Amino acid sequence: MNISGIIGFLAAVGLIVYGCVGGGNPLSNFWDPASVAIVLGGTMGALLVGVPFKVIKNIPRMIGMVFKPKKLVPEKYIESMVEYAKIARTKSLLALEDSANDCKDPFMKSSLLLIVDANDSDRVKEMLDDAIDFMCDRHEENWAVFDKMGGVAPGFGMIGTLVGLINMLANLSGNPDGLGAGMATALITTFYGCIVAHLIATPVSNRLKANHAKEVLCMQIVEEGALAIISGANPRYIQEKLEFMLPKNSGKSKKRKAEGENKDAR
Amino acid sequence: MNISGIIGFLAAVGLIVYGCVGGGNPLSNFWDPASVAIVLGGTMGALLVGVPFKVIKNIPRMIGMVFKPKKLVPEKYIESMVEYAKIARTKSLLALEDSANDCKDPFMKSSLLLIVDANDSDRVKEMLDDAIDFMCDRHEENWAVFDKMGGVAPGFGMIGTLVGLINMLANLSGNPDGLGAGMATALITTFYGCIVAHLIATPVSNRLKANHAKEVLCMQIVEEGALAIISGANPRYIQEKLEFMLPKNSGKSKKRKAEGENKDAR
Amino acid sequence: MNISGIIGFLAAVGLIVYGCVGGGNPLSNFWDPASVAIVLGGTMGALLVGVPFKVIKNIPRMIGMVFKPKKLVPEKYIESMVEYAKIARTKSLLALEDSANDCKDPFMKSSLLLIVDANDSDRVKEMLDDAIDFMCDRHEENWAVFDKMGGVAPGFGMIGTLVGLINMLANLSGNPDGLGAGMATALITTFYGCIVAHLIATPVSNRLKANHAKEVLCMQIVEEGALAIISGANPRYIQEKLEFMLPKNSGKSKKRKAEGENKDAR
Amino acid sequence: MNISGIIGFLAAVGLIVYGCVGGGNPLSNFWDPASVAIVLGGTMGALLVGVPFKVIKNIPRMIGMVFKPKKLVPEKYIESMVEYAKIARTKSLLALEDSANDCKDPFMKSSLLLIVDANDSDRVKEMLDDAIDFMCDRHEENWAVFDKMGGVAPGFGMIGTLVGLINMLANLSGNPDGLGAGMATALITTFYGCIVAHLIATPVSNRLKANHAKEVLCMQIVEEGALAIISGANPRYIQEKLEFMLPKNSGKSKKRKAEGENKDAR
Amino acid sequence: MNISGIIGFLAAVGLIVYGCVGGGNPLSNFWDPASVAIVLGGTMGALLVGVPFKVIKNIPRMIGMVFKPKKLVPEKYIESMVEYAKIARTKSLLALEDSANDCKDPFMKSSLLLIVDANDSDRVKEMLDDAIDFMCDRHEENWAVFDKMGGVAPGFGMIGTLVGLINMLANLSGNPDGLGAGMATALITTFYGCIVAHLIATPVSNRLKANHAKEVLCMQIVEEGALAIISGANPRYIQEKLEFMLPKNSGKSKKRKAEGENKDAR
Repeated sequence: MNISGIIGFLAAVGLIVYGCVGGGNPLSNFWDPASVAIVLGGTMGALLVGVPFKVIKNIPRMIGMVFKPKKLVPEKYIESMVEYAKIARTKSLLALEDSANDCKDPFMKSSLLLIVDANDSDRVKEMLDDAIDFMCDRHEENWAVFDKMGGVAPGFGMIGTLVGLINMLANLSGNPDGLGAGMATALITTFYGCIVAHLIATPVSNRLKANHAKEVLCMQIVEEGALAIISGANPRYIQEKLEFMLPKNSGKSKKRKAEGENKDAR
Repeated sequence: MNISGIIGFLAAVGLIVYGCVGGGNPLSNFWDPASVAIVLGGTMGALLVGVPFKVIKNIPRMIGMVFKPKKLVPEKYIESMVEYAKIARTKSLLALEDSANDCKDPFMKSSLLLIVDANDSDRVKEMLDDAIDFMCDRHEENWAVFDKMGGVAPGFGMIGTLVGLINMLANLSGNPDGLGAGMATALITTFYGCIVAHLIATPVSNRLKANHAKEVLCMQIVEEGALAIISGANPRYIQEKLEFMLPKNSGKSKKRKAEGENKDAR
Repeated sequence: MNISGIIGFLAAVGLIVYGCVGGGNPLSNFWDPASVAIVLGGTMGALLVGVPFKVIKNIPRMIGMVFKPKKLVPEKYIESMVEYAKIARTKSLLALEDSANDCKDPFMKSSLLLIVDANDSDRVKEMLDDAIDFMCDRHEENWAVFDKMGGVAPGFGMIGTLVGLINMLANLSGNPDGLGAGMATALITTFYGCIVAHLIATPVSNRLKANHAKEVLCMQIVEEGALAIISGANPRYIQEKLEFMLPKNSGKSKKRKAEGENKDAR
Repeated sequence: MNISGIIGFLAAVGLIVYGCVGGGNPLSNFWDPASVAIVLGGTMGALLVGVPFKVIKNIPRMIGMVFKPKKLVPEKYIESMVEYAKIARTKSLLALEDSANDCKDPFMKSSLLLIVDANDSDRVKEMLDDAIDFMCDRHEENWAVFDKMGGVAPGFGMIGTLVGLINMLANLSGNPDGLGAGMATALITTFYGCIVAHLIATPVSNRLKANHAKEVLCMQIVEEGALAIISGANPRYIQEKLEFMLPKNSGKSKKRKAEGENKDAR
Repeated sequence: MNISGIIGFLAAVGLIVYGCVGGGNPLSNFWDPASVAIVLGGTMGALLVGVPFKVIKNIPRMIGMVFKPKKLVPEKYIESMVEYAKIARTKSLLALEDSANDCKDPFMKSSLLLIVDANDSDRVKEMLDDAIDFMCDRHEENWAVFDKMGGVAPGFGMIGTLVGLINMLANLSGNPDGLGAGMATALITTFYGCIVAHLIATPVSNRLKANHAKEVLCMQIVEEGALAIISGANPRYIQEKLEFMLPKNSGKSKKRKAEGENKDAR
């Protein structure tokens, strides 16, 4: 669970609502069905025209993944790969097959099966690289929808405001008193468009990119580990090498690594 | 047929019209021939000056291709290439010539003819790569027109609004009552410009890019397949290799592939 | 002559003027010398400070080249190079010298002279590549001026509008009736700035880029042809190879090529 | 201490406050809790949704590092590396270990330990390059938060202004006298959003990038120095080589270097 | 002296002032100390926070260099290098040392000293490339300040306008007559911000980039010349090679070159 994201989102909604009703204004000032029709209709229409439906239909799942992302602990991936390396060394490459069948992560599973098949290192590298590239393309498609949404929503917000202003001004001579209320209604669409863009589309896109970076890191750990297992490296060396890939512990693990090698060297 | 795109477009138009006439406003509030003249005239003029006519004249065809794109099923391309590989293996490379002449896809046809001519692999690769590159350039020219349209339409919308405001303000002293109506008319051009940009130009450009990506994928399948046929690879291996290029099935096909190789290896 | 560009430009000007005077407004509403001073003065001043004068003074010639571009027919370049290849083959490389002296295109001429001088292929390639690169730099300087103009003109348009508004508002208490006329005048500068940017600067820059792409294509045809002549390739092969470089005929020429090779191969 | 930055920030705040209260206006005109709620709440909410919390919580430390950056004197790094080179040459590589343990800079320390471990040059280069890359990723995450803040704060400023305008206009008929005050309050949010973006987020991001460039330079000096020590280069040559990496003295050091080599060469 | 730049700047200032005072408005309408405080204070403050002081303090010198750039005549650099090549050929490499000591251009001087030291060609190339790279970094730092200034000045202009509007609107009920004057004052800051951005920051940045390109060209001429001297090339060949690097004469010099080689070849 992305606790900080949920709290942040709720707090932002709460504070904006507080800003809206502060001073005794009714929240109904900010509700107008025609405005919703223009902003949501226009935005979804523009996305449906421009983006294949198989990507559009991922939108709710993507929003869900922002608040409840996959649990990816790179350290656990390292642990598992080191475990497999030990099995491969003490028993045999073929002994990995049973472990592979118990493995839940599909990428790790196919990597292990590729090792078991005694493929040569270059071929495994090419296939795993391809798999990572395909995942990058798929993920990019997903966040690109939110980038497009963030670009188009304020545009339809402005279109709605223009619609409201044009109607209001056209009726001005007949009903000068309605100017204030009409203009308020007109501005609601721009408000909606900005909220969609700044509170939903852009943050979701940013978080999807951050999640993607973490997932790629885990896959790279699996790939590096698999290649090291094929090359027959010793499990301890594999652990050191993989821990070096963790950005946040780089200082600590590096020191440990250096000392470890120091002892080895004597 | 791009069903979701057509529904999306109609829904967007419907909801925007609903937003316009909601509250009993006549749709005629949003019709002004001078505004149409400025936005469409200016936008087309700027495009005609800046873009060669042979690209401009593709605009209607491109819009058509967004709603009725070429039917490209990468899986069928794989099937065909595997079929051709079988022919090449069981009969001979020359036997491909008859199949090639029955082939409807021009790119696939010329790829097969290149194989038949017993060209070496490097030369075939160079020629097919060039053909794909030229297609990319052509397609980019097409979507770049819509990108430019999306950039220039709001600009002429604003020019039209300025024209309207200047005329209205210049007449203000003589006819203060016309302020509302004049300003409404002035804003119509910005409304038109935004509609052209956000509901037509940008979505069309996005969809052309998505269609292009799919077409390139099919051509790459044909290219990879042709090169594999030349190298004399076995049809089953070619199938596995090409299926690996399909992004959405990558998980499934990869597993199948791994298992297949597993069995082969024993 | 860029017929479509001229028609487009005239039509855009005509429709915008129609939009301006529609409804009986005098065109004089859109004329204000102080506004012209600010927009043109500011834009040219900013360009003169930022861009070397030797580039600035190309502006009128560049605008001319948009409406009357160099006549470049890539097919004719291919024809000529094939002709020269025949001379080189049937007579001798030295026999090209007379042809070269009759050649009007300076790039083609120096390419031929380089062949005649019996330079080795690598050196010719390096020198022709350099010449193409230098042309790219020169052309980029030219269109970059129009990009900068398109960026700066709306800025000075806004500056002029601010000047107008400030003066108008400062005089408001003394002359409240002048508000409308003053604001109309103020908005004229923004109108001028947008017209300069959207109807002149951006389209000219776009067309210069398109012209440039075509010129580069012709030079690449000459270069490829020259290198093929040096390598002693047969004229028919050179023709096929060069025709392959023409984007719009790529489908047709490719088929022809494939068939041609097909026959050759038997 | 970043003296010029602190003075600049205080001067900017002072001059803006002077601009606010100049002409006898009370500073309370610029205080509105609902506006603070919308701008800060929305901005932090959007960041919390879009950026992992472990990066968000660095924000105060990053702002602190802008005003009190790490003291990094590239010249001192050169001095140290030359010192270590002398030890390595006169005593032995192993003698570096004691010096390494006294070293305070963690990157320099691990570099020295890698040398002591008698790793080969390629491996040391790979590991130090990786460490620098990881630091770049970490730093980029940090400044990217401020870039996102600078993009989103004016957006929520505008949202707040829309909220204020909508409420004000909806109440217009009941209280026409409140128009001025209501609009003033509405504009305060845009003011807050612009201040956050232009006075905090963008300058902090720029300075973090500048600090990063300096830190990378120091790490590169250490890396180049370490590699030179491994290759057994003479300390004087190492000093010249490293001094050549200092941009601002490049003129002077280059001359000195040239003269130095001049003498060596005779 | 950059005559066209000075004339352009003065003309722009003159025309804008004419636009301001045209119609009998006093120039004092455009003077407001609080606005100056906000725009200049905010802009300089944001720059001081974001950019190291050692770069900020170059601002006046950089503006000076736009109007009085270094006199760099690439043709003279070619002449000098050819001269040195003749000395190196007729006398000896060592004879260059005296010439080097008379040389005023520091880059040319160190290049000559490197030749004299009989360094091998790769090493000289590496050192001169590094020197050019360091200069590029330094120059980029300088123009980046003006790019940042151009981005931030309109932002503080808008902040100032918001300050003015908020104060004016807050006082509206007490002093409705002051609306016009108050709003005029408010708009002055946006006017200042736009002038700083469009008339100073952006043009200065553009010109610094253009000057930089010319300086790099001269340094590349020196580098190419130095490498040719080391390789013992004949002075006439060096001259042709270097003249080929001059973009504007490329047509002419190329022809001459081709003819020259033509004669040589016979």
